[in-house]
Amino acid sequence: MLRSCARLIRRGIALPGQPQSPRPLPCCYTTPRFYSPEVIRDYAMPNATWSKNLQDLYNRYMEGSQSGAWERIPSYNATVHHIKGVPPSRTRENRLFTRNLDQDGVGFEYSMFYNKAERRMVCLFQPGPYLEGPPGFTHGGCIATIIDSTTGAGAVYLCGSVMTANLTINYKNPIPLGHVVIIDSKVERVEGRKVYTSCQIRSHDDAVLHTEASALFIKLGP
Amino acid sequence: MLRSCARLIRRGIALPGQPQSPRPLPCCYTTPRFYSPEVIRDYAMPNATWSKNLQDLYNRYMEGSQSGAWERIPSYNATVHHIKGVPPSRTRENRLFTRNLDQDGVGFEYSMFYNKAERRMVCLFQPGPYLEGPPGFTHGGCIATIIDSTTGAGAVYLCGSVMTANLTINYKNPIPLGHVVIIDSKVERVEGRKVYTSCQIRSHDDAVLHTEASALFIKLGP
Repeated sequence: MLRSCARLIRRGIALPGQPQSPRPLPCCYTTPRFYSPEVIRDYAMPNATWSKNLQDLYNRYMEGSQSGAWERIPSYNATVHHIKGVPPSRTRENRLFTRNLDQDGVGFEYSMFYNKAERRMVCLFQPGPYLEGPPGFTHGGCIATIIDSTTGAGAVYLCGSVMTANLTINYKNPIPLGHVVIIDSKVERVEGRKVYTSCQIRSHDDAVLHTEASALFIKLGP
Repeated sequence: MLRSCARLIRRGIALPGQPQSPRPLPCCYTTPRFYSPEVIRDYAMPNATWSKNLQDLYNRYMEGSQSGAWERIPSYNATVHHIKGVPPSRTRENRLFTRNLDQDGVGFEYSMFYNKAERRMVCLFQPGPYLEGPPGFTHGGCIATIIDSTTGAGAVYLCGSVMTANLTINYKNPIPLGHVVIIDSKVERVEGRKVYTSCQIRSHDDAVLHTEASALFIKLGP
């Protein structure tokens, strides 16, 4: 698999407007940039559908960001807005999977914070009623999605652009829709181009361990 | 983990209208039922946004269903509609994660077929522009979602209701948005309550292997 990944890395990633290679790169992440609210909406900011638990957690991490320990990560509804060099006025019909619903509160409501010293990316997540799997509970694929997004963002903030090579998830306790959880991920080690991450999903009060996971990413670029 | 799963199994699954246990079951799947189109929409039927590749594959499997080798699986936009005993007129604000968008063609367009003799569940999938991860490509979490859904459905058709315990995915080649792929899953073996499945995602013409995965499910009920 590593040989295959190395071949892909040499081919480079196809950005919008650039010609695409015949076998372009797998799922990858790049560092988001900040835009002013007048230019483009940052979906990681609180809105009226956030529960008290989500708002309280957000406030706690925002306090942590004032001391410099944590950095809040912006989130837009188009992948290209997360990539440096792409002008914010560029319009596309595509939408980022986790931000593809028009209505606040029904889908992924989340905000991420990064702790550079601890190599941790934390995501505060409130799953809405349109993310259902079993009746009343969050879909397993939705849980995989927020794990992939959070661990991937953590790998990016340490190593630059990466692509997902492996995702391994152990589901332990289901996540009721509307219940706020914390996705707590960490870069465990970096070996050459390989970035190994671990991840836990716990309830907002740390009382329930919902999920454990690991993800392997491959660094892109030179 | 098995002990933990056994405890969960003994607690039973909470259906709508029934009291929920304090620690309800993780992500689970149950057998869908067929409704007439006048009663409720089956989203696994072709619509105007389906490409020729998706329509051609669908037609091929429909031919296979005439010989009895394959069975087409219906798909609704609410989880409760997939559970026997829940009346179709029951309205809920919740939506199934993979059917949560109002507009045809922008999200998950897919149809599943089951082959009982081969223990295979196949999903024909066309990812729309609202499922973006890397620019122009399908989000890794979206790929995890369709794998979870397809392998889970295959486990259900062989063993009855199940829950997801583990999902392991190796991403090999990205899936461009709009490109039709085949999710080909199989129940490899059943050991007690454990149902082991494997899965490949290949391009519609079998030329590209996009993803390999395995999933473990736990049988529910007595």
